[in-house]
Amino acid sequence: MSDTLISNFQNILDGQRVLIGESLKQRYDHIWHMNTSLEALCLLLPQTTDEVSKILNLCNDHEQEVIIHGGLTNLVGSTRSSSQQVVISLERMDAIEEVDIASRTITVQAGVILEKIHDAVEEHNLLFPLNFGARGSAQMGGIIASNAGGLRVLKYGMTRDLVLGIEAVMADGTVINSLKKIIKNNSGYDLKQLFVGSEGTLGIVTRAVLKLVEAPSSRNAAFLAVDGYKDVVRLLKFFDAHLAGKLSGFELIWANAYKQMTSTSDAVRPPLPYDYRYYILIESLGSNYERDQAEFQAVLETAIVQELALDAVMAQSPSDVEWFFRIREDVNNLTDGMTHDQHFDISLPVSLIGKYIEECYDKLSTVNGVEQIYAFGHVADGNIHFMIGKESLDENLKLQINDIIYNGLQDIGGSVSAEHGIGIDKKAYLQISRTPQEIELMRALKRSLDPNNILNPRRIIDL
Amino acid sequence: MSDTLISNFQNILDGQRVLIGESLKQRYDHIWHMNTSLEALCLLLPQTTDEVSKILNLCNDHEQEVIIHGGLTNLVGSTRSSSQQVVISLERMDAIEEVDIASRTITVQAGVILEKIHDAVEEHNLLFPLNFGARGSAQMGGIIASNAGGLRVLKYGMTRDLVLGIEAVMADGTVINSLKKIIKNNSGYDLKQLFVGSEGTLGIVTRAVLKLVEAPSSRNAAFLAVDGYKDVVRLLKFFDAHLAGKLSGFELIWANAYKQMTSTSDAVRPPLPYDYRYYILIESLGSNYERDQAEFQAVLETAIVQELALDAVMAQSPSDVEWFFRIREDVNNLTDGMTHDQHFDISLPVSLIGKYIEECYDKLSTVNGVEQIYAFGHVADGNIHFMIGKESLDENLKLQINDIIYNGLQDIGGSVSAEHGIGIDKKAYLQISRTPQEIELMRALKRSLDPNNILNPRRIIDL
Repeated sequence: MSDTLISNFQNILDGQRVLIGESLKQRYDHIWHMNTSLEALCLLLPQTTDEVSKILNLCNDHEQEVIIHGGLTNLVGSTRSSSQQVVISLERMDAIEEVDIASRTITVQAGVILEKIHDAVEEHNLLFPLNFGARGSAQMGGIIASNAGGLRVLKYGMTRDLVLGIEAVMADGTVINSLKKIIKNNSGYDLKQLFVGSEGTLGIVTRAVLKLVEAPSSRNAAFLAVDGYKDVVRLLKFFDAHLAGKLSGFELIWANAYKQMTSTSDAVRPPLPYDYRYYILIESLGSNYERDQAEFQAVLETAIVQELALDAVMAQSPSDVEWFFRIREDVNNLTDGMTHDQHFDISLPVSLIGKYIEECYDKLSTVNGVEQIYAFGHVADGNIHFMIGKESLDENLKLQINDIIYNGLQDIGGSVSAEHGIGIDKKAYLQISRTPQEIELMRALKRSLDPNNILNPRRIIDL
Repeated sequence: MSDTLISNFQNILDGQRVLIGESLKQRYDHIWHMNTSLEALCLLLPQTTDEVSKILNLCNDHEQEVIIHGGLTNLVGSTRSSSQQVVISLERMDAIEEVDIASRTITVQAGVILEKIHDAVEEHNLLFPLNFGARGSAQMGGIIASNAGGLRVLKYGMTRDLVLGIEAVMADGTVINSLKKIIKNNSGYDLKQLFVGSEGTLGIVTRAVLKLVEAPSSRNAAFLAVDGYKDVVRLLKFFDAHLAGKLSGFELIWANAYKQMTSTSDAVRPPLPYDYRYYILIESLGSNYERDQAEFQAVLETAIVQELALDAVMAQSPSDVEWFFRIREDVNNLTDGMTHDQHFDISLPVSLIGKYIEECYDKLSTVNGVEQIYAFGHVADGNIHFMIGKESLDENLKLQINDIIYNGLQDIGGSVSAEHGIGIDKKAYLQISRTPQEIELMRALKRSLDPNNILNPRRIIDL
């Protein structure tokens, strides 16, 4: 049966774009595991939406499971496959089809790498605001499927907020073309929402229209320090009010993480001394360097005069801004000293973060085998990242750490994933973020849109 | 059968909250038709989510159609009912449950009127940014169901962007509780999107967590004039770039609409002479009146020096700002002189607006029976409102006008409804904005979530 299927794929894809046998061994399922060969029945490299449609139509008829590959930067195991699964990679659909300067949109195929989008719009003084560490590898289709966030959600929103139009292929090969370059469209259900953040389980995104914004021309930053979490919230509200519309980052770093982040080299030397409990990095984006710098400084001085912060230092130059952000972004400074590490991207109401994280620190510090505990995150979005260092890969230790960080989230209306998604790795914890009725509704949607359960099966939910 | 049903409703709702017979005659189905009695089997006034759940469970078992009432300001006929339909009004579920100042959220029941939300957060220097003419009547449940827009979408987004959590009751009575106070939640499908903008066809929204922002403390405005549509786009990009994050309104008014809007009384006297083709009203919201006014003036002067506008006048005081916005917002100045009127809220790519609207003007002016043609709108959102005055309510005349305004939208990727929705009145035009595959997917969702088709049946789509 699989031979017939492969021969049918070859008919659709002109022979060469069906990888089997030896040529499969050069492929892998994650950029962190390039030395491990991909397990799959075959890997397909479609170049058009029509080819994706024909492939899925065929797979659906044969109840053939399909795993979808983008840039392979997924953090929850979604790109793993078995030898009986067909893998479809969108990498050959990597055209930027149009930049519309007046409508401020870019139309791209799903295989385009994020960084290419940044580069394509820069010359027009436009910006695609989504940005994160994996920008050189992550493909737009995967970014949409996982509703990626990143560093500037506070000002520009998540992927969901930046997708105006979508083209997606459903399990039976039906093409949903909703590729409009319009901001507002209340004509019926907003179908694109089904494909954003559903991790490839309801359809394969093939093209998208993305929203662009005018590129900011000034950037200011400062580090501040306080001793109480209430002071963190007060500062957030203060800067959001006084830098109206310009505040683009409000990153919180717990004291021990700050110390580790600023002690590995002179490039990340500490802007403020190690005397405080919380360190905050704020960023503002504007349109006039001199005016914005003066305003930023005046607002910062007001914060000091009003005793909202215990200490503060403002970046005096673009290289200072880079220095400040290097501290926050170079997470290797945290993980390099770890024997093994375990990462988290929880979210919870902003008002409850201080107490919850403190309790996690306390509980984790009593666990045998936990060696380091670091917390930092996008506090304005309610999104905290934990990085835990541990002595072994023991499964019980892992579960014990998960329980401490996840289990309290249910009572306070938090989520086990703010950004990375559920995939396979967090499936056991979905019921912490979602009620049984919600999970049943997800299943109903999956059954309705993919009745043979062929698309990224067993991601997020089991049927 | 209906007697048993009503008696069951009375059991659920303590007798008094089931209106039948004479007491139904005091009710109506739209705030514009208060003198016309409601047609319905009965009208139900639940006070809790549990009551809504029990009502729907019963209706679903009896395949009893249900029409949902909020503030009755809907513009596409969605609240009309027949004598065999059960009407549920959410008006008794009008509690504001919590304002969380640190998390910047408000939790409300669906029957709360928009203006009450504005009032409740004002004392905390917070703002719920959604705002439009019907704020004194529109209820939050209906606002969510219709994904309302309004005047400040450019800066703050539509309703969809402001809903963090939702509680909704599905057709069979299942309660979907997704009432989280968090910005980011990538744990599975974003189910709340199903209930935002689906016009009550997939569930009844009973409660919501809404996003608040720090209230701006300064407001500036100006009128500008240009002669070419390309100049409009250039100005939009200029102000969006130079008033980074503060530009909150960019309203375009065509010359003949501007003339009519500014000629009915001294309160709406013209800020600029009648010499130009396009008039633009811009608004900026900030946090420091003196700094913002100086910045706004400097940016405006730059626009003049760079010859981006032919003429401009800046509001010199808060009362000037009110004067400018009175011109734009008081649409009665357009409709008062009309024998009959017909309204539109189309959207299309920003780059194509100038040409498309000009063609509509040209075609409409040749139609017998069309007396006035006025265009204006939120051009930054690609959303243009047309108001057409006509001599009669003749059906053919109405369809002729619809055809001129709608039919060209399909080829250019526009939408027949940017804001108001489809309801019953625009159902015949849905296929202009949506492909057959999209409409079929909407039907699949409706069948999956409401298999007996009891919730607001025959709105948006027919099965």
